[in-house]
Amino acid sequence: MSRAVKGNAVIGQSGGPTAVINQSLVGVIETVKKCGAISRLLGARHGVRGIIEERFVDLKSLRKAELERIARTPAAALGSTRDKPDEAYCRKIFDVFAKNDVRYFFYIGGNDSADAARIVNELAAHAGYELRIFHIPKTIDNDLRVTDHFPGDGSAARFVASAFMGEDRDNASLPGIKISVVMGRGAGWLTAASTLGRRDGAFGPNLVYVPEVPFSLSRFARDVMEVYAKHGRCLIACSEGIVNKQGVPITVELAAKLGHRVERDSHGNVQLSGSGALGDFLVQYIRQKAGRKKALRLRADTYGYLQRSFAGIASPVDQSEAREVGRKAVEFAMGGDVDGSVVLKRAKGGKYRIDYALARLRDVAREIRALPRKYISKAGNDITESFKAYALPLVGDLPALGKL
Amino acid sequence: MSRAVKGNAVIGQSGGPTAVINQSLVGVIETVKKCGAISRLLGARHGVRGIIEERFVDLKSLRKAELERIARTPAAALGSTRDKPDEAYCRKIFDVFAKNDVRYFFYIGGNDSADAARIVNELAAHAGYELRIFHIPKTIDNDLRVTDHFPGDGSAARFVASAFMGEDRDNASLPGIKISVVMGRGAGWLTAASTLGRRDGAFGPNLVYVPEVPFSLSRFARDVMEVYAKHGRCLIACSEGIVNKQGVPITVELAAKLGHRVERDSHGNVQLSGSGALGDFLVQYIRQKAGRKKALRLRADTYGYLQRSFAGIASPVDQSEAREVGRKAVEFAMGGDVDGSVVLKRAKGGKYRIDYALARLRDVAREIRALPRKYISKAGNDITESFKAYALPLVGDLPALGKL
Repeated sequence: MSRAVKGNAVIGQSGGPTAVINQSLVGVIETVKKCGAISRLLGARHGVRGIIEERFVDLKSLRKAELERIARTPAAALGSTRDKPDEAYCRKIFDVFAKNDVRYFFYIGGNDSADAARIVNELAAHAGYELRIFHIPKTIDNDLRVTDHFPGDGSAARFVASAFMGEDRDNASLPGIKISVVMGRGAGWLTAASTLGRRDGAFGPNLVYVPEVPFSLSRFARDVMEVYAKHGRCLIACSEGIVNKQGVPITVELAAKLGHRVERDSHGNVQLSGSGALGDFLVQYIRQKAGRKKALRLRADTYGYLQRSFAGIASPVDQSEAREVGRKAVEFAMGGDVDGSVVLKRAKGGKYRIDYALARLRDVAREIRALPRKYISKAGNDITESFKAYALPLVGDLPALGKL
Repeated sequence: MSRAVKGNAVIGQSGGPTAVINQSLVGVIETVKKCGAISRLLGARHGVRGIIEERFVDLKSLRKAELERIARTPAAALGSTRDKPDEAYCRKIFDVFAKNDVRYFFYIGGNDSADAARIVNELAAHAGYELRIFHIPKTIDNDLRVTDHFPGDGSAARFVASAFMGEDRDNASLPGIKISVVMGRGAGWLTAASTLGRRDGAFGPNLVYVPEVPFSLSRFARDVMEVYAKHGRCLIACSEGIVNKQGVPITVELAAKLGHRVERDSHGNVQLSGSGALGDFLVQYIRQKAGRKKALRLRADTYGYLQRSFAGIASPVDQSEAREVGRKAVEFAMGGDVDGSVVLKRAKGGKYRIDYALARLRDVAREIRALPRKYISKAGNDITESFKAYALPLVGDLPALGKL
């Protein structure tokens, strides 16, 4: 089989956008422009949805300056989708590919996207149609396996780390109890990043709660009041995904206790993001526990979409790695009839360095990687210092702050 | 009277912190270090509270590198306070000053602080005690008069503008209705900043609601569904301080409609910041109006304290102006027995340039400056382009983003 089959290519973006998902898009575009094998590079509007509706934009005509602006822009420039293709959906995708002589499919997305890519790939193989499929990973909460981390992690972590550096100083200025809720449904990676700027007992939270540790409301209230008694203030980083021993989201448990209704999405899942409910519930719970006698300054913020979409502070390392996975996907595609997901391998020991490799699609699909226990303190309410060695290189230099 | 009376100086910080309030502190410290008249510069811990408790730190011994780190650090390095001194409180302040031979008082804060400074000043004048009092203004929502703007505005506006640039792209990626709630109890300056990155029909909100325009829930729902019908998505910037025709906060009106309880602070004021309530209420209201039949993607975020405390993205212009008002306060103090508030005057026409002047304390006290009507669209649900000429120079260059 020829090493570089001639034909067209499709690229799409899927899932929750990140600050650097367009870097990967531009990495693919600029590399495709250089190689002769691919005649047309079709950008699918809103991921797989745009493929089956054949809504494509031509991407090879974009100029360098415009590409650079798009690369620095958060969120998915092609539009994204939450569609999770089943077998019938994938068959439609394959039909569109065959009709348009598409021989390369680059799909930027999370684990669901890797899974969709896998199904389309199997259909192509079954039909004897040469199709090279590359999953280009993105995530903001590092919830995939087989890789050191994924593009998107570093920028979201940078936002959260910077946010908590300032939050700590704000809380020191006007002391009180402050709860800040961080994204991450199934894993605590992003919440752990709240501690990355911490030094000299400042620039970070006093307590950290991640979904990996069953959350107990009474234990939480005790922790908070202990820190408050000692320091006269308490800053808390709390994952939106915390669950109790039975695996029930704390949002649901608290809503029941406080007599509130919980919002659910169309699939019946409890809505965690895009609502201040968890933070507000936790504040009310602490207020109830502490009693009205104490004039506690109690506040909650929920960082929400800013964590993935804030413009202008993406991690420089994350940006260049995201670009590189796009480039590598095209290089791998030109190298032979292979498929896979581009993953990042960290060189052992010494200075931080990343090598890029191809993993099998089925290995990256549908698994959430929990924060390892070694990064969580024994008491389960903080993150250990060892997490910094792992995470700081992804985030880039944090602001050098001072205190009196 | 001697132009520069010998003695000690006290400096304090007050009110809600900003991203550049420490620039002003450092501006005072570095200028005091250069002038012989001031023997000791005492930093009061937590503002006026630290004065009456005589909790002071010596600030003249700080080295340049440490000062620079503190200058770049958000929030009040000395600690802040919400205490609003009455006459008896001010008498205690004056007693501490007299006892410690304090002849200069630099007070960094909002309008309440200017008012406290004014009372202490009158007590000193009455006692025939030479005291030079300088109010160094800070705010994040530009709610004072007599000045073009105040330090702190530009950085908060930069945060909000950058946030909405990304939010717009995020909303375009996964279309839906997104409400983002912006700080500003009495005035819509900061909410208006949501439009500063807008161009080519992107990079900003579709609808903007400020406290200056009475908010009607039914009108709001109609606006949102109109934009949604036209564009398939709608991004809304909403001030936390919106009120109805009767001046009742919308949070209160909605809570009553939806059968929820509203949190109040110890003064009985409805809690606006540090809670996701308004955004969540608005989402529920739209959902009710639209009916459950439509699978609307509806989300709300409340930006919260990040707007004033986020580390590392303060506006460069704002930083240098905040430093300069600190320096100018000391220079004015050395110039003669004057008191006042340092204000910023914008040169008319041509390139953006600021001159610093001294305003009377009573002129800056206790007035909120509303967003002028010319900056609000006729329909009352958007901000006009003319606002950019006023506000963009304060914010600095925004990220240059692109779209397909």
